[in-house]
Amino acid sequence: MDIDHYMTDLGRRARAASRLMARATTAAKNDALRAIAAAIERDTERLKAANARDLARAATQGLDAAFIDRLTLSDKALRTMIDGLLQVAALPDPVGEMSRIKSRPSGIQVGQMRVPLGVVGIIYEARPNVTIDAAALCLKSGNATILRGGSEAIESNTELARTIGEGLHAAGLPADAVQVVSTTDRAAVGKLATMTEYVDVIVPRGGRGLIERLMAEARVPMIKHLDGICHVYIDDAADLQRAVTVSDNAKTHRYGTCNTMETLLVARGIAPRILPQLGLIYRGKQVELRVCAESRAILQAADIGPLVDATEADWRTEYLAPVLSIKIVDGLDAAIDHINTYGSAHTDAIVTENHDRAMRFLREVDSASVMINASTRFADGFEFGLGAEIGISNDKLHARGPVGLEGLTSLKYIVFGHGEARQ
Amino acid sequence: MDIDHYMTDLGRRARAASRLMARATTAAKNDALRAIAAAIERDTERLKAANARDLARAATQGLDAAFIDRLTLSDKALRTMIDGLLQVAALPDPVGEMSRIKSRPSGIQVGQMRVPLGVVGIIYEARPNVTIDAAALCLKSGNATILRGGSEAIESNTELARTIGEGLHAAGLPADAVQVVSTTDRAAVGKLATMTEYVDVIVPRGGRGLIERLMAEARVPMIKHLDGICHVYIDDAADLQRAVTVSDNAKTHRYGTCNTMETLLVARGIAPRILPQLGLIYRGKQVELRVCAESRAILQAADIGPLVDATEADWRTEYLAPVLSIKIVDGLDAAIDHINTYGSAHTDAIVTENHDRAMRFLREVDSASVMINASTRFADGFEFGLGAEIGISNDKLHARGPVGLEGLTSLKYIVFGHGEARQ
Repeated sequence: MDIDHYMTDLGRRARAASRLMARATTAAKNDALRAIAAAIERDTERLKAANARDLARAATQGLDAAFIDRLTLSDKALRTMIDGLLQVAALPDPVGEMSRIKSRPSGIQVGQMRVPLGVVGIIYEARPNVTIDAAALCLKSGNATILRGGSEAIESNTELARTIGEGLHAAGLPADAVQVVSTTDRAAVGKLATMTEYVDVIVPRGGRGLIERLMAEARVPMIKHLDGICHVYIDDAADLQRAVTVSDNAKTHRYGTCNTMETLLVARGIAPRILPQLGLIYRGKQVELRVCAESRAILQAADIGPLVDATEADWRTEYLAPVLSIKIVDGLDAAIDHINTYGSAHTDAIVTENHDRAMRFLREVDSASVMINASTRFADGFEFGLGAEIGISNDKLHARGPVGLEGLTSLKYIVFGHGEARQ
Repeated sequence: MDIDHYMTDLGRRARAASRLMARATTAAKNDALRAIAAAIERDTERLKAANARDLARAATQGLDAAFIDRLTLSDKALRTMIDGLLQVAALPDPVGEMSRIKSRPSGIQVGQMRVPLGVVGIIYEARPNVTIDAAALCLKSGNATILRGGSEAIESNTELARTIGEGLHAAGLPADAVQVVSTTDRAAVGKLATMTEYVDVIVPRGGRGLIERLMAEARVPMIKHLDGICHVYIDDAADLQRAVTVSDNAKTHRYGTCNTMETLLVARGIAPRILPQLGLIYRGKQVELRVCAESRAILQAADIGPLVDATEADWRTEYLAPVLSIKIVDGLDAAIDHINTYGSAHTDAIVTENHDRAMRFLREVDSASVMINASTRFADGFEFGLGAEIGISNDKLHARGPVGLEGLTSLKYIVFGHGEARQ
C-alpha cells in the first residue's frame, strides 16, 4: 500500500466531510451518538470476538499485564463507552454560539462565533476505548476525525469503526466524518502529522516516546500533554489541617496520574510544625521520601525514616509512583521560582490563608491549572465541569489544561453590516 | 559571533524578564509606554541621524522606492509611533482578568485567568516602526519580547531599542523585557524560531518568503498571516445598492492590503442586473477584470471591456493590485464551496437580504472573519475595536483574524478551594 497516497485520500475525504459536519444540526449529531451507543450495545458479542483476536495476538507477543488490561474490551469497558456516548449527547453543543457582539462607530456590529476546528487527527496507543471517546467528542464539536490507534488493537478498532459508521449513517451524517486508519504502518502517523492541508490539529494520546517523536516531526499544530511535574507549596500562613488534607490527597489519591503531586515545597517557617505530621502519613502509605538537607533534619528529629537525599534530577522527575521529593524554601518567591524552573506547567497548588500571596501564586505560577487550597488531583475535565475530556494540554496557545468540547472549536470573527463601506 | 550561544543567552534573559513582567502592575507598564514616547519625542534628531545611516547604505544597494519609504523615519512616522504608544497605554490591561468562575459539586470554584504568553519573538523586515508597535503591545500584555528586524534597519532599530530601554528603566521594569537582536546574521531567525524552551510564540510580519521559510523551519508556535484571497458573494437576494457599495469598496478602497477582495462571486439570478453597473465602476477605476465565460457574456453585452478570461490560477491568486476575478455561481452552496476551496481563510463577505442564507454563510465559510453586507476592508484590529493589532492570523488555533492584546495572552484555569481533597 502506498501510505502517502492512502493518507492523502483519507485527508481529502475528511476535509470534505468536515464541511458537512460544520453545518450539521445538534439533533443529527446527538442522534448519531445515540445510534453508536445502541450499535455497541447490540453488537457486544461481535466486538468482544474481534477484541479476542487482538488479545490472542498480544498474548503470543508477550505483552505485559497492564498492556493487556488496557487492550481488553470487558463488559465494564463497553458499558463505560456506551455511557460516555450518551453523556456527550447530553452536553450542550458548543458550535454556533455567538458572543461579544458590539456596535462599532462605522455602523457594523462585530462579534465572535464558535465553530469547529475542521479535521482533528487522534493518535493513540492500544486503548480501543479512545476510538469511541475521541470520535464522540469530535463528532459533537462538529469536526471530522481521523483516528490512528495502536496496531495491537486493529481488530477491535475496525469493529468499533463499523458501529460509528452505522451511527453516522442513521443520523444522515457523512460516513467520512470519522475514519479509522486501517494500516498499521507507522509511516501513517508521520503523514497524518504533516499534512497541514487536510488536518487542522492533532491530539496525541500516549506515552512520552510518542509525544517526543511528534514534537520533532509534526507540522500540524498539536494539543499535547507532556509531563505532569505538579507541586504543592505549603505557605507560612497555611492552615495546618488544610495543608495535611491537600498534600496527602495530591500525592496518595492515585500515584500514576499526571495531576499527582511529585514535589512538596514547604515554607521554612511552617516546616517544623507540618513536616513530621505529613511524614507519618506518607510513611504509613509507603511513600518513598526524597528530601533536601533541611527537611531531612526535621524528619529525622521526628523519627521519620527511611529518607533518601534528593538530587537535582529529583526536582525534574515525574515519578508516577509512591515517591515524593520534599524541599524547604524561603517563602512564596522561592516557591514560584522553583515551580517555574523545574515544573512542567501542568498543575500547581498553594496552601495559604493569606489572600495576597494566594493571588500572587495564581497569577505568577506559569502553569495550565493553578490552585489555592485544593488538591492538584482536581485538574481534570470532569472535576472542572467540562463534561468530557479529550486530553490535558500543557501548551500555552489555544487550549490550556483539561480540553473538552470547546478546545475542539475555534472563534471566528463575525460582522453584521447594512451595506457599510470603509472610509 | 556564535549565533547559537548569543540567541540562547537572549532567550534565557527574556524568560527571566517574562517572570517579572507577568507580575508588573498596569501602572508600571503604562509608565514605561509613556516614557518611551517621551524619549522618542526628545531624541527625534538622534533617531533620524541613525535612520539616515540606514538610508545611505540602502541607497548604495539600489533598493526600490517603496522599500526606502518603509525604511524612512519621517517626522510623520515618528509622530505615529508616539501616538501609538500613548494609545496602547490608554487600552485596558488584559492581564489578570478572571472569568467564568463556577462552583463545582466538590466544593471548589473553577474559572479562568488571562495571563501573558511569556516570551514573544517578532520577526519582521525593514520597517523600524514595527520595533515600537510590537514592543508596545507585548509590553502592555505583560510579555517579554525578542525583536528581530531587517538588517537594513539595524541602525534605526538599535536607537529605538535605546529609547525602549530607557522607558523600561524609568518604570522599574526589567531591561531584558524588550531585547533587539543585534546581529544581522540570518541564522538568528532560525534559532529564534526553534528555541522552544525560551520562546512561547513567534509573530512573523513580512512577505510570503519569510512566512514560508518559517513554516518549514519553526518549532515554536506561530501567529501568522499568509495570503488574503478574500471574496464578496452577491446573493440572488442582495440589495443592489448594498451590493454595489460593498463590492466597490472591498476592491477599490486600497489595492495592496490583505483584506482587499480578489474574487467577486455573483449568483446567476442577479448577475444580469448587477454586473453591468459594477463593470462600469471598475472600468472607471482601471481595474482589470478576469472573468468566467458567463460574466464575459453579460459584461460584453453591456459594452464593458476589455476583459481577460480567468484561468484556474486566478481563483487562487492574491493580486494585491487593481485586478479582480469574477465568477458566476449557482447560488449559496456553490459560493461557499468556491470560497472554502480557493480562499485563504482570511475574510469573506456575503451581500444578501435573506436571513437564513446570511447565517449559513457566517457559519459555513471557514474563514477568520466572515461578514454580512459589509466590505471585507473592515477586517482590521482598529475597525473591530481591538484598539491595536500585532497582525492578522489565518490560522485556526489560538488567535484567529486580527490579533490585539488578547491574542498575546492565554487563559489558565484557576481553582479556589478550602482544603478540598478529591474523592
